[in-house]
Amino acid sequence: MADMKLTKQSENYSEWYNQVILRSELADYAPVRGCMVVRPYGTALWENIQADLDARFKETGHVNAKFPLFIPMSFFEKEKEHVEGFSPELAVVTIGGGQELEEPLVVRPTSETVIGYMYAKWIESYRDLPVLINQWANVVRWEMRTRLFLRTMEFFWQEGHTAHATAEEAEEETLKILDVYTTFARDMAAVPVIPGLKSDSEKFAGAVRSYSIEAMMGDTKALQAGTSHNLGQNFAKAFEIDFVDENNTLQYCWTTSWGLSTRFIGAIIMTHGDDQGLVLPPRLAPTQVVIVPILRKEEDRAQVMEAVNRLFAELKAAGIRVKVDDRDNVSPGFKFNEWELRGVPLRFEIGPRDVESGTVMTARRDMPGKPGKKVMPQENVVQWTGDLLEEIQQAMYDKAVAFRDAHIFDPQDYAEFQQSVEDGWAFSWWCEDAACEEAIKQDTKATTRCIPLDQPQGEGVCIHCGRPARRKVYFARAY
Amino acid sequence: MADMKLTKQSENYSEWYNQVILRSELADYAPVRGCMVVRPYGTALWENIQADLDARFKETGHVNAKFPLFIPMSFFEKEKEHVEGFSPELAVVTIGGGQELEEPLVVRPTSETVIGYMYAKWIESYRDLPVLINQWANVVRWEMRTRLFLRTMEFFWQEGHTAHATAEEAEEETLKILDVYTTFARDMAAVPVIPGLKSDSEKFAGAVRSYSIEAMMGDTKALQAGTSHNLGQNFAKAFEIDFVDENNTLQYCWTTSWGLSTRFIGAIIMTHGDDQGLVLPPRLAPTQVVIVPILRKEEDRAQVMEAVNRLFAELKAAGIRVKVDDRDNVSPGFKFNEWELRGVPLRFEIGPRDVESGTVMTARRDMPGKPGKKVMPQENVVQWTGDLLEEIQQAMYDKAVAFRDAHIFDPQDYAEFQQSVEDGWAFSWWCEDAACEEAIKQDTKATTRCIPLDQPQGEGVCIHCGRPARRKVYFARAY
Repeated sequence: MADMKLTKQSENYSEWYNQVILRSELADYAPVRGCMVVRPYGTALWENIQADLDARFKETGHVNAKFPLFIPMSFFEKEKEHVEGFSPELAVVTIGGGQELEEPLVVRPTSETVIGYMYAKWIESYRDLPVLINQWANVVRWEMRTRLFLRTMEFFWQEGHTAHATAEEAEEETLKILDVYTTFARDMAAVPVIPGLKSDSEKFAGAVRSYSIEAMMGDTKALQAGTSHNLGQNFAKAFEIDFVDENNTLQYCWTTSWGLSTRFIGAIIMTHGDDQGLVLPPRLAPTQVVIVPILRKEEDRAQVMEAVNRLFAELKAAGIRVKVDDRDNVSPGFKFNEWELRGVPLRFEIGPRDVESGTVMTARRDMPGKPGKKVMPQENVVQWTGDLLEEIQQAMYDKAVAFRDAHIFDPQDYAEFQQSVEDGWAFSWWCEDAACEEAIKQDTKATTRCIPLDQPQGEGVCIHCGRPARRKVYFARAY
Repeated sequence: MADMKLTKQSENYSEWYNQVILRSELADYAPVRGCMVVRPYGTALWENIQADLDARFKETGHVNAKFPLFIPMSFFEKEKEHVEGFSPELAVVTIGGGQELEEPLVVRPTSETVIGYMYAKWIESYRDLPVLINQWANVVRWEMRTRLFLRTMEFFWQEGHTAHATAEEAEEETLKILDVYTTFARDMAAVPVIPGLKSDSEKFAGAVRSYSIEAMMGDTKALQAGTSHNLGQNFAKAFEIDFVDENNTLQYCWTTSWGLSTRFIGAIIMTHGDDQGLVLPPRLAPTQVVIVPILRKEEDRAQVMEAVNRLFAELKAAGIRVKVDDRDNVSPGFKFNEWELRGVPLRFEIGPRDVESGTVMTARRDMPGKPGKKVMPQENVVQWTGDLLEEIQQAMYDKAVAFRDAHIFDPQDYAEFQQSVEDGWAFSWWCEDAACEEAIKQDTKATTRCIPLDQPQGEGVCIHCGRPARRKVYFARAY
């Protein structure tokens, strides 16, 4: 399908998005409505995300476990806000082994309840705390309107669940993970994100405070790309997660939960993609370099392939993720289009003239056409390839920051505000009243994205109602 | 719980098994009947298994993908043997988002059907073949009698699914993976296994031929520890997985599937465990070395901890998985018991006298008591620790082979055969008639485990009916 033109982003962004995913073979539709198959290319990308995040979680003292897929329906009813938030979205098993079940089983939409039940069993004393566990899992939410990666019925994620002896430690954990997500997004995915607090109406069902990282997509809409929740003692009280403290007093734990999902792949696609397709950040790209031999005559084959295979071997030995595309049934031009569609950061072309001159023609995916092409020596290939990949990584980040900053506005009045959220995001003073938030949403379809941790000095007046406002917040239309 | 004596293996093997798992914190019971929680220690073990197997799959050309959890009920009905085999075991979602579903969704017990559907969509030409995909996933089978790791309602596994242009390639793939499993079990888990063909009555529902690796547990029962199935064209025909060959003719593919699950953890526990608890093979053990400081007086602390921390840092830097147990609320003896229970291959004890003499007291988990203790120099700790771990790995394998071989019998008549399968396994000529197999099972509870790939020369007569027999087979009681 690489030979069919993609719909342009400017024509129909959402159609562009779907086409890119299907044609680059990141994912496909499953036979069940709203479910996806993550194809090998998308899975390799997800595995790179997993490996990096997993290392960051482990560095910060977390361990992995595996909790069950099925949760008794009654567990959901123990935390009032939680059941209200999730009950419209549940998939329920009512038949097992041919028999109707006495108690229906929910396919987990998130695991606070079942993990809370286990923590109540495991935690006895302050010596058992903190408990810092993460799991990599699939979860199911019965969504009516689904989009590949962004909102699918089944999705893949990690969910961290921690228990602490004090409120302070729980808040510290919540913010520590928000920082892990922020750093990961910036350094690995080249996705600039704004970490901040969710408004009360946007917080997780059952949380005391929810934080998120918010990213701007290529159409200027916002995407919540990861969340970290301070659950206070809500779940501890519902599931009796308690411990004996150093003074021999029984106390409830303070818990947190936090997650980042395959939705993040959507963030990568829409932060960096262009009309030619995906543009993947080198540090996460399944293939970092593709080598295309240019063979116009059969007698060139031996010497060209010798050079191709030599460079391939050198790069591979150095740990660079490299592929040779030696298919003989498609043209070099077809291959160029296909690897551009698939977002491979660097392409090398090697033909007979390159062999003669000891050079490689390189092409950067992030700079289409002439400006991104450069003739490089075959010598020191590992060194300069590594440098080029890092240069691309940085350039992608800088470009994304510049795009985002050019689309964040500081409107002076509500009329300007309404225009701002048509053109991008508004960063405005807000009274923090839910009614005001709702009125803005009704008017403009923009919601509060987050109250950033970095706040300007002083106070202001609410962009909508004019009442005093303590903090500025980002408003945007969102995925 | 490390201070409570374990039930002895000889008293009640199955009670020993459950206690070891719960007390070593490999796993726990989930609130839903038959489901388990794999705790951090068990998950770390599984992750080591995963990492090694995944590398072996990738070396042999496979890639990973993620297929959906839910499968339409109608898919199961497309392959007759498959639906007969699996329908008693299905968990079925009938309610989604508060509504009764028009078509119930099966929670996958295995993914041949839904993957077959996708392959039919993806495969067009011989150029698309072979397709070599694996997935790491959770699956659900509604089991009535469950055991932690061995048979749980939800379990974790990898399932490989491949499609080929010829019958020969499919058979080659099936055997290649059987060999990957055999090698992994031997080299990583120190579990000797016998690779072979399953009898017709024991094969996978929908397969043409099933192969398995069979291991002997400490109670001499057999455990099927991994399976590899040649599915012929059964699923290709049911799901129309076809391709245009080089002569432009439409052909059905030949497919395979193969899996190894968290059940393998049960194999490790029961191959190596003893009355003190787990004995984990060094190459897979989450913790390979535990260092216990011996502090009788407070004034020893500084110098002992200096030595402990130095050795810890050296080992860790060398990639050895090492832990320091510096808890001050339990005695060294308590710690020794606990780490023995948890099967850590090597324990180091360092006290004031070791500091003075520049030594470490080492204790091997696989050789309890005096014979496994050795004083080693603090110098060259990385070198000799690595050597010792390899020595333990080899010794564990040798011990398991010796135990197994001492419990495989070659009975001369059916009376002897009946005794053999009380005391271990029988390796006997068999007519390959299902009626004969069933009669043996009724008499002795022993089933055919596998017809090994390595066969003796010549022919024999069936151990049960006396008719001519072409091949020898292993009979045993099995998990």
